Amino acid sequence: MHTTSAVPTRAAAAALDDADPLACFRARFTGTDDEGPDRVLYLDGNSLGRMPRDTPAALARVAEQEWAQGLVGSWSGWVEHATRIGDALAAGVLGARPGEVMISDTTSVDLYKLLVAAADARPGRDVLVCCADDFPTDRYVVAGVAAQRGMQVREVPAHIDEGLDTGVLSAALDERVAVLVLSQVAYRSGALVDVAAVTALAREAGALVVWDLSHAAGAVVADLGASGADLAVGCTYKHLNGGPGAPAFLYVRRELQEQLRQPIWGWFGAADQFEMGPVYDPAPGIERFAVGTPPVLAMAAVEVGVALVAEAGIERVQAKGRALTDLLVALADAWLAEHGVALASPRDATRRGAHVSLAHPHAWQLTQALIARGVVPDFRTPDRLRLGPAPLYTRFVDVWDAMERLRDVLATGAHESFPAERTRVT
Amino acid sequence: MHTTSAVPTRAAAAALDDADPLACFRARFTGTDDEGPDRVLYLDGNSLGRMPRDTPAALARVAEQEWAQGLVGSWSGWVEHATRIGDALAAGVLGARPGEVMISDTTSVDLYKLLVAAADARPGRDVLVCCADDFPTDRYVVAGVAAQRGMQVREVPAHIDEGLDTGVLSAALDERVAVLVLSQVAYRSGALVDVAAVTALAREAGALVVWDLSHAAGAVVADLGASGADLAVGCTYKHLNGGPGAPAFLYVRRELQEQLRQPIWGWFGAADQFEMGPVYDPAPGIERFAVGTPPVLAMAAVEVGVALVAEAGIERVQAKGRALTDLLVALADAWLAEHGVALASPRDATRRGAHVSLAHPHAWQLTQALIARGVVPDFRTPDRLRLGPAPLYTRFVDVWDAMERLRDVLATGAHESFPAERTRVT
Repeated sequence: MHTTSAVPTRAAAAALDDADPLACFRARFTGTDDEGPDRVLYLDGNSLGRMPRDTPAALARVAEQEWAQGLVGSWSGWVEHATRIGDALAAGVLGARPGEVMISDTTSVDLYKLLVAAADARPGRDVLVCCADDFPTDRYVVAGVAAQRGMQVREVPAHIDEGLDTGVLSAALDERVAVLVLSQVAYRSGALVDVAAVTALAREAGALVVWDLSHAAGAVVADLGASGADLAVGCTYKHLNGGPGAPAFLYVRRELQEQLRQPIWGWFGAADQFEMGPVYDPAPGIERFAVGTPPVLAMAAVEVGVALVAEAGIERVQAKGRALTDLLVALADAWLAEHGVALASPRDATRRGAHVSLAHPHAWQLTQALIARGVVPDFRTPDRLRLGPAPLYTRFVDVWDAMERLRDVLATGAHESFPAERTRVT
Repeated sequence: MHTTSAVPTRAAAAALDDADPLACFRARFTGTDDEGPDRVLYLDGNSLGRMPRDTPAALARVAEQEWAQGLVGSWSGWVEHATRIGDALAAGVLGARPGEVMISDTTSVDLYKLLVAAADARPGRDVLVCCADDFPTDRYVVAGVAAQRGMQVREVPAHIDEGLDTGVLSAALDERVAVLVLSQVAYRSGALVDVAAVTALAREAGALVVWDLSHAAGAVVADLGASGADLAVGCTYKHLNGGPGAPAFLYVRRELQEQLRQPIWGWFGAADQFEMGPVYDPAPGIERFAVGTPPVLAMAAVEVGVALVAEAGIERVQAKGRALTDLLVALADAWLAEHGVALASPRDATRRGAHVSLAHPHAWQLTQALIARGVVPDFRTPDRLRLGPAPLYTRFVDVWDAMERLRDVLATGAHESFPAERTRVT
């Protein structure tokens, strides 16, 4: 699309919207009413998804009916929420079976739990592998577990524009490796990893993989069951639209559950936590990976977000994400390359998730200039402008208009009036 | 009060309400409008506190304004919420200094983090001490950390009716002990431990103490600063009324923060998490004990609950809790002893928190019979009826009426028609 094809027109983008089977989902989110030319173009759903319109009512129901009126008696229902939502996520989004997914803690804490459990299941192996370009929490949690256990960390590089080289990865997976931690979709480049292929590589080497699906869940097909994945964690506040700091999910393949024990022995992971017995006896299924009291209010918002993705269908979501980012890449090639903007994501849509990064030496200033013009991207060190057109609520014309505003910023040099020195960014 | 004094009358209870300086706080909670004789008498605020009337608006504000409208830009404010609410809790409830408390994770996860950090700070010591009658998560987390590190667990007994014997505890704290985990208020008996005295004992033995304030915070004075406490965790959904599964808090004495590292190296514990650098460098202050993305929606509810306790004043809350449970104990002595009910909590009000346990062989049936009559207690294995008249919204007449209903159940044998075999309870 980037070489010889004509530059897509706004009318062509509008035609894509007219043909979009997911177009109806846009109205299910707040902040999507404004159709004017100055409207905010939100391209950061990969960081914090928009709020579904049903979410406030769900929160109010849990607070004002279940909590305020039902009081402690509501626990008879609440105690199942983490696995009920997990099952919905498994069936509708992740391609997993009932009893393999639950909502729990944060992505970082879940990663720690599964990583320690996996390392314990590979005694005598002293190496943990992660990707040098993976999200900080993944690399940091791996480093922390390695430090705690006297293990070594082996970092594999990633081509920032094309993703992980499986040849390099394969060479890193030797008989010393206990666990590999890897994101299905890379947080900066959006590069998509083949879960089945990497799982097979690791299994051949005798290692387990803990997948981080944070930038993948709700954006691309994970198909955990078919891919043979053993362990995964992920975030619900990005493409699952569960709200700021929403609780995370974890996945453990059914056949592996009884073999694994996680290290934080909280009462909700016990076989019968209300028996309150003298000895911790882990629950038989996925609930053994739970720790403390589940976050009931926050889970109500997660449930709404998960249901929307499931209703839309993850295959359709992925297809639209590819088409949206294809348009973005085509416009970047046509309009921005001459201003020194380079694509820092896989050019092949089948090899990326639902976000794209553009590299530019003044990416920080571009970020500020875009925000001033009503386009919300995010900045990622050192020189990346990250654009995530969330498929459920972003239109092709939104991408077109956002890219036009970016072209205008670059053409006029409007970004040069913004400070080059970075302040704390989120 | 239990021996020679006259049985308190309902008029005497009403007079206590008339003189109650906290009476005005009752209207600040939902479910308190009904004044009829058949109203629900909620005596389980020590398990799940009632919902403050301001909570739904706080949730709606965060969802509909900050999230839906502010989108990812709201993180510039949200990033401070965990420590801002922590500071309010420190100043208004816990007697700690700014920068010593933050909202984070669950009680179980926070306990794990601080316990591992504390054990690391006492190298060469191989024993963890906890109380045999402490809440399951405390005992289980201690057991899990001991198993992970090859340490031994030493459990000290507690007199269920009078609390911990400091002589016994002192004998258990020898030079092998790295860390003691202990609840300030025992979850079953309500026995109150002297934080300053136990902290001094442990310090003399060279051990650290991780306090669990779950049943204490918002019910009794903790005064962490004055007592010399080093480390604490606690729950916000009981007497802090933060909602079901609300996130927990942790406390680390300022002077100790730089010496400790917790084991779960998540990005929110890093010195500059948005720099996303190659190496985990823990944040300089209390934030090094954070892990993943903070639960913004859930914290909004916590903030409302914390503010209410701070406004009421924890000394006044504690005084009312003693008076309420004094009334409860007096009525139990006068009315229930003849039916085989025995007090299973300290008789001295200065030695207990804001809840009381009554022992009876048919406690499970009594629990069901009370719920059928609109009294909400909870049951604790094997034979305890636990009654927590939360000081902020429970009146003296509520305690009187609840005890009268319990007396009637026992006198008529109404509980005998309920199943003796326990089902799963919450």
